[in-house]
Amino acid sequence: MKKNTKCPLRKSLRRILLYRGTLLRLQALGVKRVYSYTLGKETGISAEQVRKDFSEYRIKGNQRGGYLVDQLIKEMEGIFYRNGSQNIIVMGRGNIGSSLANYSNFSQRMINIVATFDIDPSKQRVRSDIPVYTMERLKEVIDRFAVRTAIVAVPDLAAQSVCDKLVEYGVEGIINFAPVILKVPEDIIINNVNLSDEIESVIYCVSHV
Amino acid sequence: MKKNTKCPLRKSLRRILLYRGTLLRLQALGVKRVYSYTLGKETGISAEQVRKDFSEYRIKGNQRGGYLVDQLIKEMEGIFYRNGSQNIIVMGRGNIGSSLANYSNFSQRMINIVATFDIDPSKQRVRSDIPVYTMERLKEVIDRFAVRTAIVAVPDLAAQSVCDKLVEYGVEGIINFAPVILKVPEDIIINNVNLSDEIESVIYCVSHV
Repeated sequence: MKKNTKCPLRKSLRRILLYRGTLLRLQALGVKRVYSYTLGKETGISAEQVRKDFSEYRIKGNQRGGYLVDQLIKEMEGIFYRNGSQNIIVMGRGNIGSSLANYSNFSQRMINIVATFDIDPSKQRVRSDIPVYTMERLKEVIDRFAVRTAIVAVPDLAAQSVCDKLVEYGVEGIINFAPVILKVPEDIIINNVNLSDEIESVIYCVSHV
Repeated sequence: MKKNTKCPLRKSLRRILLYRGTLLRLQALGVKRVYSYTLGKETGISAEQVRKDFSEYRIKGNQRGGYLVDQLIKEMEGIFYRNGSQNIIVMGRGNIGSSLANYSNFSQRMINIVATFDIDPSKQRVRSDIPVYTMERLKEVIDRFAVRTAIVAVPDLAAQSVCDKLVEYGVEGIINFAPVILKVPEDIIINNVNLSDEIESVIYCVSHV
């Protein structure tokens, strides 16, 4: 997360995301109740920290005999999606763009990918539930679906100009997977995610421990 | 990066990765020389910090009239890959696994993906430069290519057992893209990368600023 934005993501909030991801998985397995130490064990966080985070965000979850999984998820989603589910778009229908478009975990997280965009018109024939549009329809789609957040997964040389267009059309948050740091106005939230760096940092550690 | 490993990745090292990625891009554009303020501007880091990092890692880059791009990259690669290029494997040939297998940026970073693995035998017919094997050949490939680092991109329910196999066969570093926290012995380096969380954190900020 870029430092000069107004929303430096708090560590406690990242942990809430982690708890919720774990709870969704437990829910899928049919688990109805959890204890703070169960949740802690699954996420690698201490039970004490779990309770502290719950207290900070006023998460109750009906505590007698363990927290109710459904209730916890609902309360956590209340923190994240006060406006209900969120419509987002993906710029670039290459490998990473397609991965994200087909990633089934998003829907249970109340993230809807409503469209993807690619300059290559042949990509419009891709078989998928999520349509591929050319850039001409960008503004129309952003307006129609009230899109406030976009994922950039285009080649590095195209990333900045795509980003500029998104900002021009009113997008306020960008997750960038292109291996380049995007420049945005101060009031835009940007998260530059570099997959190579995530991988290389582990290789470095393995070579030096 | 997991906290209890012996290699907590230093922030300065992450910045070196960032500089190098930017330099590779500039190199591809034909740029021969850079100044610390150019590099700082491109990466969003102050020129002073750039010089401080260079000094910490004893990066010289021949400073008269700007650093030589080729020289800087070479010196930075010396920090990361003292043993030359690294062979890694990808577990799971689904969307994310295929993205990574086809991601062309790795080769210029001296990361070789030598094989991918999938339990679905039909995936072995996937057209790609990088072969898809079934799990039976895992140990053989790890041994033959001296693989020390692996990427886990299998469904969440399979991730822990795949991880256990990797550790059993001598893998020392794991980058996990499955939306679950993997448990590993203390001496294994693990980086849990949760793409949904990266995206949701931006959505949260956009909704709350």
